[in-house]
Amino acid sequence: MDVSKRIDRAMTAAISRAQGAGNAGDAVPGRLAAALNYAVTPGGARIRPTICLTVALACGDDRPELADRAASALELIHCASLVHDDLPAFDDADFRRGKPTVHMAFSEPLAVLTGDSLIIAAFDTLTRVPDEDALRALRLVRLLAHHTGMPHGICAGQGWESEASVDLSAYHRSKTAALFVAATQMGALAAGHEPEPWEELGARIGEAFQVADDLRDALYDESQLGKPAGQDATHGRPSAVESYGVQGATRKLQEILSGAIASIPSCPGEAQLAQLVRVYAERMTPVAYVRT
Amino acid sequence: MDVSKRIDRAMTAAISRAQGAGNAGDAVPGRLAAALNYAVTPGGARIRPTICLTVALACGDDRPELADRAASALELIHCASLVHDDLPAFDDADFRRGKPTVHMAFSEPLAVLTGDSLIIAAFDTLTRVPDEDALRALRLVRLLAHHTGMPHGICAGQGWESEASVDLSAYHRSKTAALFVAATQMGALAAGHEPEPWEELGARIGEAFQVADDLRDALYDESQLGKPAGQDATHGRPSAVESYGVQGATRKLQEILSGAIASIPSCPGEAQLAQLVRVYAERMTPVAYVRT
Repeated sequence: MDVSKRIDRAMTAAISRAQGAGNAGDAVPGRLAAALNYAVTPGGARIRPTICLTVALACGDDRPELADRAASALELIHCASLVHDDLPAFDDADFRRGKPTVHMAFSEPLAVLTGDSLIIAAFDTLTRVPDEDALRALRLVRLLAHHTGMPHGICAGQGWESEASVDLSAYHRSKTAALFVAATQMGALAAGHEPEPWEELGARIGEAFQVADDLRDALYDESQLGKPAGQDATHGRPSAVESYGVQGATRKLQEILSGAIASIPSCPGEAQLAQLVRVYAERMTPVAYVRT
Repeated sequence: MDVSKRIDRAMTAAISRAQGAGNAGDAVPGRLAAALNYAVTPGGARIRPTICLTVALACGDDRPELADRAASALELIHCASLVHDDLPAFDDADFRRGKPTVHMAFSEPLAVLTGDSLIIAAFDTLTRVPDEDALRALRLVRLLAHHTGMPHGICAGQGWESEASVDLSAYHRSKTAALFVAATQMGALAAGHEPEPWEELGARIGEAFQVADDLRDALYDESQLGKPAGQDATHGRPSAVESYGVQGATRKLQEILSGAIASIPSCPGEAQLAQLVRVYAERMTPVAYVRT
C-alpha cells in the first residue's frame, strides 16, 4: 500500500473512532462529530505524515501499524493547530483550503472543541497497540507532546506571537519546525530506530517550509492560497521576506534544502528520502522564481 | 507525605517542566509560561487528583510516582477545561476562583494556548516513567484520552451544548462524570489494579458533583461561588434544579452518594474511601439545606 493510502486509512480510522463509530452504547454530539471530519478533510498535501512514513520506510518499517498511527497523530495535531490558529482571536480567517474555516462553518465553541478533541485523538491513537509495543508507543507519545506543547512545541511557537520581544530563532523552531522534527523522529522511532539523529533533517525541512510559507504569503493572492494572503504583514509577524527580501528568501530556501539532503542519516532508504526532499523543494519554491 | 502535598509537588513539577525549567537551551515565551501557572493556581479543592490518589492508596499504591503523575494529569486536564470553558465563546466568564479568568488576565489567544498546552502537559507527564512501567503508563494515557476527548469525554460533554436536541444522560456522563471516572480508574490502574470495577464509583461521584454544582449555581451568588452565578439559567443549560427543583435535587444528591459508597470495590482501603465520599457529601450539599 502506498504512503498516501496508508495515511488516509489511518486518518479515517482515527476520526471514525473519535466520532464514536462501532460504539453502540452512548449517544454522541453530532455537530462536534461532524466538525472533526470537516477539520481534517480535504486532506491537503499531508506533508508531515508523508515525511513520517517515508522515514519509517527508510528505517525498515518493522511496525507499519505503529508508523501509521504516528503519521496520523502528527496530522491530527497539525489540523488541530490550524483550527485554533484560524479562530477570531488569532488569524480570524474565514477560509482554509478553499472552504470556510471550522468556526465559520460550525461555530467558535465547536472550533475550540474540535481542536481540543483532535489533540486528544492524536494521543489516543498512539495507545492502541499490542502490549509488546507499549514502550515504543509511550516514547512516541512523549515525542509528540514535546514537539506540540510547551516549552518548545507548536503551542510555544504560537505563544511567541503574544510576546513584546520575540526570540526569532526559538519562534521559528517551535512554530513550524517542531512538527517536522516530530515527523522525522517519530518515523524513525516507530520503526525502532533512535530518534536523535533525525532531528536535523526535520529541522531543516521545517525551516524550508517556514521560508516557503512566508514567500507564498507575500507573493500569492487569496485565490492561489485558498486562505487570506498577506497575513504576516497585516499582523506585523516576523517573516523571512521581511528579513531578507523575496530574492534573498528564495536563495535561503534552496540552501536549507541542500543542507537537509546532506543531513539524512545513513539508512537503507537514504536515496528515496533525498528524492522526496527534492520533490518538495520544487513544490515549495514560488512559481515566479522557478521560472526566472 | 499526605495526598495534598503529593498533588502540589506533582503539579509544580509538571508546570515547571512546561515552563522550560531546567532547560538551559531554547528561549520560552514568557507570558504563556506565566499563564500556565496562573491557570492551575490557587489549587482549589483538587478533588479529582485527591480521588485518584485515594483510590491508588486503597489499591496498595505500588507505584506512587506513577499515581502522582496520573493525579496531576487529571488536574491539568481539569484546569485546561476551565480555561477553555471560560472563553468568551463559551461561558464568557470574567472571574474564576475569585480572580480574573486567563483570557481576562492575559488575552484570549493566550487562554486558548494555555488550555492546549495544559492538555498536552497532562499526556506528557504520564510518559516520564521508567521503561518497566511503560505498559501501565500507556494504559493511563489511553484512559485519560478516553475520558477527555471525543466521543465520550469532557469535550463531548461541552459539545452537547451546541446540539439542538440534547441526550441528557450522555451529556451529564461526559460533561462532568467522565473525569471522575478517570480519577477512580486511573488511581486503580496506577496501582496495578484493573480499572473497570472502579467505573461506578467515579460515575456516581461525578453525578453527585454535577447535581451539587447545579444547586450551587442556582442558590449561591457570585461572591460565594467566586465566579458568575445563575449561568445554567442564563445560558438555558439543562440542570438538575430545572428538572427536579431544589429540594428534589438535594434528595437526589444524597441518594447518589449513598450509592457511591455502596459501589466501592472490595480493597484494603475501602473504609477510608467511604469516609472520603462522606466528607465530600457534606461539603457538596448546599449550606442552606444542610442546616434545615
